[in-house]
Amino acid sequence: MSTSAEFRERLASFGGAARSAAAAYLDDDALSPYLLTPAGDYLGRGGKGLRPALCLATCAAYGGREEEAMPSAAAIELVHTAMLVHDDVEDDSELRRGRPTLHRRYGRAGAINAGDGLAVVALGALRDNERLLGTRLASRVWSEFDVMARQTVSGQARELGWMRDGRTDLCPDDYLDLILQKTCWYTTLLPLRVGALIGSRGAVDLAAMTRFGFFLGAAFQIRDDVLNLVGSQAVYGKEALGDLREGKRTLVLIHLLAAAAPADRERVRRFLALPPAQRSSDQVEQIVALMHDHGSVAFADEFGRGIARAAAQSFEEAFAGLPGTPARWFVRDLVTYMVERDR
Amino acid sequence: MSTSAEFRERLASFGGAARSAAAAYLDDDALSPYLLTPAGDYLGRGGKGLRPALCLATCAAYGGREEEAMPSAAAIELVHTAMLVHDDVEDDSELRRGRPTLHRRYGRAGAINAGDGLAVVALGALRDNERLLGTRLASRVWSEFDVMARQTVSGQARELGWMRDGRTDLCPDDYLDLILQKTCWYTTLLPLRVGALIGSRGAVDLAAMTRFGFFLGAAFQIRDDVLNLVGSQAVYGKEALGDLREGKRTLVLIHLLAAAAPADRERVRRFLALPPAQRSSDQVEQIVALMHDHGSVAFADEFGRGIARAAAQSFEEAFAGLPGTPARWFVRDLVTYMVERDR
Repeated sequence: MSTSAEFRERLASFGGAARSAAAAYLDDDALSPYLLTPAGDYLGRGGKGLRPALCLATCAAYGGREEEAMPSAAAIELVHTAMLVHDDVEDDSELRRGRPTLHRRYGRAGAINAGDGLAVVALGALRDNERLLGTRLASRVWSEFDVMARQTVSGQARELGWMRDGRTDLCPDDYLDLILQKTCWYTTLLPLRVGALIGSRGAVDLAAMTRFGFFLGAAFQIRDDVLNLVGSQAVYGKEALGDLREGKRTLVLIHLLAAAAPADRERVRRFLALPPAQRSSDQVEQIVALMHDHGSVAFADEFGRGIARAAAQSFEEAFAGLPGTPARWFVRDLVTYMVERDR
Repeated sequence: MSTSAEFRERLASFGGAARSAAAAYLDDDALSPYLLTPAGDYLGRGGKGLRPALCLATCAAYGGREEEAMPSAAAIELVHTAMLVHDDVEDDSELRRGRPTLHRRYGRAGAINAGDGLAVVALGALRDNERLLGTRLASRVWSEFDVMARQTVSGQARELGWMRDGRTDLCPDDYLDLILQKTCWYTTLLPLRVGALIGSRGAVDLAAMTRFGFFLGAAFQIRDDVLNLVGSQAVYGKEALGDLREGKRTLVLIHLLAAAAPADRERVRRFLALPPAQRSSDQVEQIVALMHDHGSVAFADEFGRGIARAAAQSFEEAFAGLPGTPARWFVRDLVTYMVERDR
């Protein structure tokens, strides 16, 4: 099964509306043009708008109006963009959405500051919630962003720490713990929880939403790991094999370290012990070959599909009792999209 | 006139209380140890605590209790620390408070992420204001942080843009505009405005406070520019001449560009046109000599003293009608401190 034209149209519509709202928050006379040029760059490159679309659709599925969730959806897109900018500096990535990364275009200092600016504008967008939702609900939404941000910076620190410490003793559970922090909170849990809080005026059962968000976000991240290895750079928009070159502890790499015979495992360890700049393209290709030989890519792909099946089940629980609306169908179809997407 | 022992004790007391409060906000089980080690590093190095001290004292001078302003003062110290971390990466500085900068110690990626984490924790601290001050006043305080952050990232972007564009046609007014944005908002305007808002329960005249804050912050920044040129590195805690090596458009440099004869001006321009890494220590020393020869350092020093006199006058207006309390005396004495300090 693949996603329908209707789903893709709805994704484009939700994502486009949130991107426009995000861009409107950048249109502020208090912000210097020196800031706005780099800060607006990634937003102008499009992007899928998955995260704000999930927030808007969840709000609608829970009976809310789209515009009630719009400042939050815009803030989600702005925070996401801020993180992309800082991640790209941290990983020294070359490409984002098929074009040079922000720090390659504007220098490292300008990019770090632009990321800070995007985060500032994101938080400013949340101030509109007070008027729109009342102080009580607005405060709960703010709290969700606060929790998300703590989880995300902690996950990011943990991933960097694992690379710094040269960890090669990790298991899939460590990986799932990590991506719950570094990916799921901002990619799926926050959009779902905020959308449901607003749509239900605070009456939602967040525990079921959290389970669904974890499976959905994990399916997304595992697909991302696989795409970084096997995807077409032209479609995917990031440099191929970047995760491996950086030494990220993906599910594929963790599988390889466990499955390889001692001699091959030692080769992988030696590769990971090199400073990133000293890892040659030949060496990267050799590790990719090992990943295919040992079935590590196929393992991660199948693991991701299993998680997506769990997501499909937990969706039914999280969205139980809600009428069959296009917004509800959209969220259901996102599960399939997460594992089928090629960018 | 120099500051009294009483003033210095009060600064240590206010600053210490705010630093403890800031550290307590980092003590959160939701934050990974991988994040907390770098994030807590600069806070553990001490620092003057000028900014939170100004906020606490202003609140007290306006009749508030110190603890009512404590979450805001902690947030000010945390935001300031976050900025120091990002600034140090942006400028690739070597020293902070006499020890290696965070990115030299933990890597660039870890430092950028630690700065993000500090900003997240700062905003979280503001959530305590809802309970402490009520939603209405808490919302005004949040708004002050929002305005400050927009100004600061815009000022930072502008300064980076001036260096990128190789600007050598700037005048003191441009410089004052810049430091209003990049320094005064977070160093003096925010602490003063927030302290006064909380102390007066929102009844303060913020316009007079803003004038005072501008002069006070400008005196602080001009002193900083001068200390970077003539200060003792061991006392000052940052690498000497770092601003000049980076090409920062300080008041001293702007004066030199205007005052130098054509041949010397051309030398300065050639120096500024070099990429920072290609500026030799010999060249930096030669520019410093030109700055002394042309009276540029003395000019900035005198300019700073003039601004401090304006600050002393506007203090009387901003704190008019308040009882003569130790907190009020402390803020008055800060004016002298700003231009006398050697670190």
